[in-house]
Amino acid sequence: MEKHDQLLMKRQNKNLVLDILKTKSPISRIDIAKMTGMSPTSITRIVNELQLQGYVRETEAVASGVGRKATLLEVCGDVLYTVGIEIDKSLLKVGIVNYVGEIVSLHKNKRNESESYMETLLKIKAIIRKIMDENDIAATKIIGLAVGLPGYIDYKNGIVKVSDQLKWKDASLAEDLKKLTSFNVIVDNELKMKIVAESFTGKAKDSQNSILIGIGSGLGSSIMLNGEIYRGETNNAGEIGHTVIDPTGNVCNCGKIGCLATYISEGAILADSRKVKDISSIEEVFQSYRDREPWALNIMDRASTYIALAISNLLCLYNPEVIILSGNTIEKLPEIKQAIEQKCQLYIWEPLKQAVRIVYSELSDYGVVLGAAIQAQHLMLELE
Amino acid sequence: MEKHDQLLMKRQNKNLVLDILKTKSPISRIDIAKMTGMSPTSITRIVNELQLQGYVRETEAVASGVGRKATLLEVCGDVLYTVGIEIDKSLLKVGIVNYVGEIVSLHKNKRNESESYMETLLKIKAIIRKIMDENDIAATKIIGLAVGLPGYIDYKNGIVKVSDQLKWKDASLAEDLKKLTSFNVIVDNELKMKIVAESFTGKAKDSQNSILIGIGSGLGSSIMLNGEIYRGETNNAGEIGHTVIDPTGNVCNCGKIGCLATYISEGAILADSRKVKDISSIEEVFQSYRDREPWALNIMDRASTYIALAISNLLCLYNPEVIILSGNTIEKLPEIKQAIEQKCQLYIWEPLKQAVRIVYSELSDYGVVLGAAIQAQHLMLELE
Repeated sequence: MEKHDQLLMKRQNKNLVLDILKTKSPISRIDIAKMTGMSPTSITRIVNELQLQGYVRETEAVASGVGRKATLLEVCGDVLYTVGIEIDKSLLKVGIVNYVGEIVSLHKNKRNESESYMETLLKIKAIIRKIMDENDIAATKIIGLAVGLPGYIDYKNGIVKVSDQLKWKDASLAEDLKKLTSFNVIVDNELKMKIVAESFTGKAKDSQNSILIGIGSGLGSSIMLNGEIYRGETNNAGEIGHTVIDPTGNVCNCGKIGCLATYISEGAILADSRKVKDISSIEEVFQSYRDREPWALNIMDRASTYIALAISNLLCLYNPEVIILSGNTIEKLPEIKQAIEQKCQLYIWEPLKQAVRIVYSELSDYGVVLGAAIQAQHLMLELE
Repeated sequence: MEKHDQLLMKRQNKNLVLDILKTKSPISRIDIAKMTGMSPTSITRIVNELQLQGYVRETEAVASGVGRKATLLEVCGDVLYTVGIEIDKSLLKVGIVNYVGEIVSLHKNKRNESESYMETLLKIKAIIRKIMDENDIAATKIIGLAVGLPGYIDYKNGIVKVSDQLKWKDASLAEDLKKLTSFNVIVDNELKMKIVAESFTGKAKDSQNSILIGIGSGLGSSIMLNGEIYRGETNNAGEIGHTVIDPTGNVCNCGKIGCLATYISEGAILADSRKVKDISSIEEVFQSYRDREPWALNIMDRASTYIALAISNLLCLYNPEVIILSGNTIEKLPEIKQAIEQKCQLYIWEPLKQAVRIVYSELSDYGVVLGAAIQAQHLMLELE
């Protein structure tokens, strides 16, 4: 329970003005007053504070129209920065993002799968140092780091509980990275970071309720309701990969039978492919599909059926405005989109067909990095 | 965007004090001051207003402990009332509920399935009149009516878009009932009303995230996230009955194949039973199950498998704190609970087993009526 006192009121009003500035820049003081219903005197006081703190500056431009010309205000992108980091099995990405959400610099580095936990962390430290130097950004301007990675994360304590892809377990990533860099660190699952980016600038930009499905080494989803990440009681919400679709079907490594992931994940597709042919990588399966080899057509056709069911069932239960498909399978085998779409026509409940947009992520390269950096801004920045 | 001005602040503080009084009565002014962080002077002013408006009164009791004895305050249950109404195929329930959520009176009436829409509305009007007279409640004390019924509801406009069970379509229920009774009316799906009651006083009382599954003539669910009904973009969230569980399975009346409801709903169970035997009602199927007739054991065993899958899949996607099972099948055939529980052991993902309580509703008789009345309070009562 919160006491709604004057201080809280002032802080809320200040945040409101800054939010408007961030989304509507350039804008005049008088237009902010109109949008908020606050008095011009209050707006002037708040804008003065924000100018002093470096968040806002006056532009050269003036408002058009009749009457006295009003000076326009804009947010200063360079007032502060956050660093977004994506750690993947074979790739490490580090990006620095300014206050208005622009990626100032993005570094991509190969990651050796045998690389140790500490080697990866030291590499991250070195890349951050390098980016700061290259872009002449002082440490005092960086409010924190955010890491997105595959796995089950205790995001409250910044601990990687288990990441099969990275082979990390109970790693105190936030604490360890803070020791190395002196920056505050948050950690979350990559799909959760990515949907923050989709919501900030991607396919979920104007949606309050959206779902991102990741199809690749695993099958998962992240969910945004009323503009916030929805996690459930134990941060497991969106575990579409372990919904049971066929109680007489495939055995899943979780010990259940017929989990959706057992028809869709790269590991499952590889294991089934190897029943037919000596296959070394998922790319080889995708190539066989393109070459129209019957076994590959069968396996990927079945996968597309179950991907459509994943979409249909998430849609029935969450009724979101948009479902965004992303991940390695979609990126490496774009030919599968057509099959998925045809099956969605069959498997999506009629009343919902018009109620949803099913789209593909276009942030693949930098989605996790940007989302992490934006999430760091959300969580670490507290206006005085 | 909201202007956080003084008036809003005052209203928020007043609501905060009243919320504390509703949940912690009897309580002293000084304890309210401690809980809110507000000054004793502010509390005294707010309590005086609430007393004048009739919401709060002083009790005879005084706080125990050392020092000056403090008079305790309590909420006045009889300051206002709401009426909750459940319309079912063959039953009509009307209850009047006071400000502290006690059912003052509950009337149950048989409803003839051939009864017309207007006959039902006139019957509701007569019952409300009767309850008001019997309990000596003036119309001025009733802030509104709320109706819960099966079907797809446009709750914003109080329109029953379609109710297969009642055979109503595009019925302007809120408007028509208001014309008859002069009271304001809200309308919502029965499962949504029921979860409000579960959240107020039932199995979801201390949960922020809960799901109610209704198993009977249909298969549906209602969802409460962060203490609010979650509806999705077009009020279809929770449509578990139309999630596809077997793309090679039963044909559903929605035109898809393998919807969960086709293995669980009473209509589906009856249709399958009639392939074996000349069965007239679902009760007969349930009796055959109790008599251990193999066909009934098979059909209901399959139903229990798919009920467990419904639970498992809702759990994977929403990760709620509690899942409440309710509805005709559970009430009329409690023997099926054991089968469901055994299958939940098999089909629930291991990491979630400890994270959820799976329980049975105990509000069956008055759940919808109470929930509707509480929802009417939430939505219709605006403190000045």
